[in-house]
Amino acid sequence: MRIHGRPYRTIWLRDDGWSIEVIEQTLLPHRFETVALTSSEEAARAIRTMQVRGAPLIGATAAYGLAMAMRADPSNANLAWQIEFLAGQRPTAVNLRWALEEMRKLLAPLSPGSRVEAAYAKAAGLCDEDVETCRRIGVHGLPIIEAMAKRKGGAPVNILTHCNAGWLACVDWGTATSPIYQAHDRGVKLHVWVDETRPRNQGAALTAYELGAHGVPYTIIVDNAGGYLMQNGEVDMCIVGTDRVTANGDVANKIGTYLKALAARDNGVPFYVALPHSTIDWSMADGSKIEIEERSANEVLKMTGRLADGTLATVDIAAPGSGAGNPAFDVTPARLVTGLITERGVCPASKDGLAGMYGKTNEGAGSH
Amino acid sequence: MRIHGRPYRTIWLRDDGWSIEVIEQTLLPHRFETVALTSSEEAARAIRTMQVRGAPLIGATAAYGLAMAMRADPSNANLAWQIEFLAGQRPTAVNLRWALEEMRKLLAPLSPGSRVEAAYAKAAGLCDEDVETCRRIGVHGLPIIEAMAKRKGGAPVNILTHCNAGWLACVDWGTATSPIYQAHDRGVKLHVWVDETRPRNQGAALTAYELGAHGVPYTIIVDNAGGYLMQNGEVDMCIVGTDRVTANGDVANKIGTYLKALAARDNGVPFYVALPHSTIDWSMADGSKIEIEERSANEVLKMTGRLADGTLATVDIAAPGSGAGNPAFDVTPARLVTGLITERGVCPASKDGLAGMYGKTNEGAGSH
Repeated sequence: MRIHGRPYRTIWLRDDGWSIEVIEQTLLPHRFETVALTSSEEAARAIRTMQVRGAPLIGATAAYGLAMAMRADPSNANLAWQIEFLAGQRPTAVNLRWALEEMRKLLAPLSPGSRVEAAYAKAAGLCDEDVETCRRIGVHGLPIIEAMAKRKGGAPVNILTHCNAGWLACVDWGTATSPIYQAHDRGVKLHVWVDETRPRNQGAALTAYELGAHGVPYTIIVDNAGGYLMQNGEVDMCIVGTDRVTANGDVANKIGTYLKALAARDNGVPFYVALPHSTIDWSMADGSKIEIEERSANEVLKMTGRLADGTLATVDIAAPGSGAGNPAFDVTPARLVTGLITERGVCPASKDGLAGMYGKTNEGAGSH
Repeated sequence: MRIHGRPYRTIWLRDDGWSIEVIEQTLLPHRFETVALTSSEEAARAIRTMQVRGAPLIGATAAYGLAMAMRADPSNANLAWQIEFLAGQRPTAVNLRWALEEMRKLLAPLSPGSRVEAAYAKAAGLCDEDVETCRRIGVHGLPIIEAMAKRKGGAPVNILTHCNAGWLACVDWGTATSPIYQAHDRGVKLHVWVDETRPRNQGAALTAYELGAHGVPYTIIVDNAGGYLMQNGEVDMCIVGTDRVTANGDVANKIGTYLKALAARDNGVPFYVALPHSTIDWSMADGSKIEIEERSANEVLKMTGRLADGTLATVDIAAPGSGAGNPAFDVTPARLVTGLITERGVCPASKDGLAGMYGKTNEGAGSH
């Protein structure tokens, strides 16, 4: 998508042919900067500190991180160690592990001497595949928005989204935002309610930033407000992304998603989850065993923003001496999800729905 | 309650015998300062800008504001005008209108010359009555916490609260916090999950501040986290305050309350609402007609906190150029409320429950 009129992806190979460059997302929306990652360790740190974030993007970053690691040492031992090292940086999103297993499947049978070239080609391929997958998610989600627009007789369709499942979370297009961008580009009138998404404010910072850059009308709301808006008929549908969908259709996503799904159900508002196949964890029967990442209390207790002179500052916002809990994700039960929007089409959030779309096994999922 | 070891109320008559002093709540938790209010206009501004906030406290402040207005001009015309002026500062909380109507009932029949003295006496009486009412809310809520403590065999009772329905929202004790303080003072082990309560952060700023000052264990969480904690058995009960309860038991309270009530219902967690009789709006059959205050977008888009050197700074936190919606309250349907904890006892959130506790009419409510 475009920033300041120039098309960007969120990650790309640098001119040197081996290091990578990413948009520094912890500085958004205050500053647009890119940062070079020149080793597996730097890629890992970028994932952990959320310089890159979003389930698809951290998978892509890990793939390039592994390619850089192969450049330093392509041995079997380093291949195995690096995969565990990179996969351990964020525990909840399954795309990270998925991308690394895709790399392992390709690289493990190869001789060490041929791993570097293959790894870079595969990482680039994963990125291109993510772009195409996200584009297709939009193609399949578009008719849902168009149908609502028709039902509303041309009045803007009000869509609520949580966190950032936009192109900044992917390589391009986004997951939840892909249908939104495609509808907007086709002239469908719409307006997005952007949940702020405390504690890291990915909604107010990133989703607002990218929607604004693309010209999609939006309004930021605090995470508390979505239920009220739904009670008052001001939300026509919800579309969110996800970090892991289990085989029965349970949805792990940014903390607070579950609350919006409850409100949607209570008010008859359709609640859609957009995802690529790489987000499905076929090995988990349901969401009860998903490891939920607990992040630093400082994300809750401090806030970074722009002072009047444009410089950035971090302020303490809570009562001095306070502790804070910071679970980063919650699990929305499949029963609250209207449908899963995937690159293959829209299916019910259920074992049968997912199996019907992808076949019943992990192999089936990865085979297209 | 105590601050720095010294007992305070949130509002008191100054030594001059006519002006009042309040805790400047917009500076909390960063600075503890008090501010003098010397006219009805200053009282009104303190209510509107939330230097004082909380349904009971804004009622008390308005009562003293009217007393100061009578001192300037005790005419019938000014009495009528000032009541409308003060009542218009915040539309949702019913206590504001209630306190002013109590004042009107007393003052209207009096000759202008005797109104000043009567107004000050009544305002002081309303404050004392609020303290006693809140104390009794705690007496009636205490057995609920004690029963849960017994069920947990001495493990700490985890209570989730939203916004600040503490003593800072009242004259003393608080509503939702009164059972908590009384249980804590009796040695019941408990721990409070404090919802941050965006956009004004009354939880992280005020509830955390007052619980900490009193020594009650607490942990701040973002508003998004409560559902996750309930799903994982980490919340034993919720207790919140309210700004207006309608005759059928619907509960208007700080935006986001509805989402927590939905999560409580979905997870079998008891959800209690603590309130004084003055919060009941007998004139409204249900919550659908309650006017919901829309506040400034700046409350969403900016954040004030402490810099490392201790000075206060306000930072812009959202994508530049963003708009924000800021509804300040939502309505939790009575069906989601386990019980109403009042100064008379605990009753179901229903027409019959309220009528059984207070009698069926407004007159009945005010007669005790």
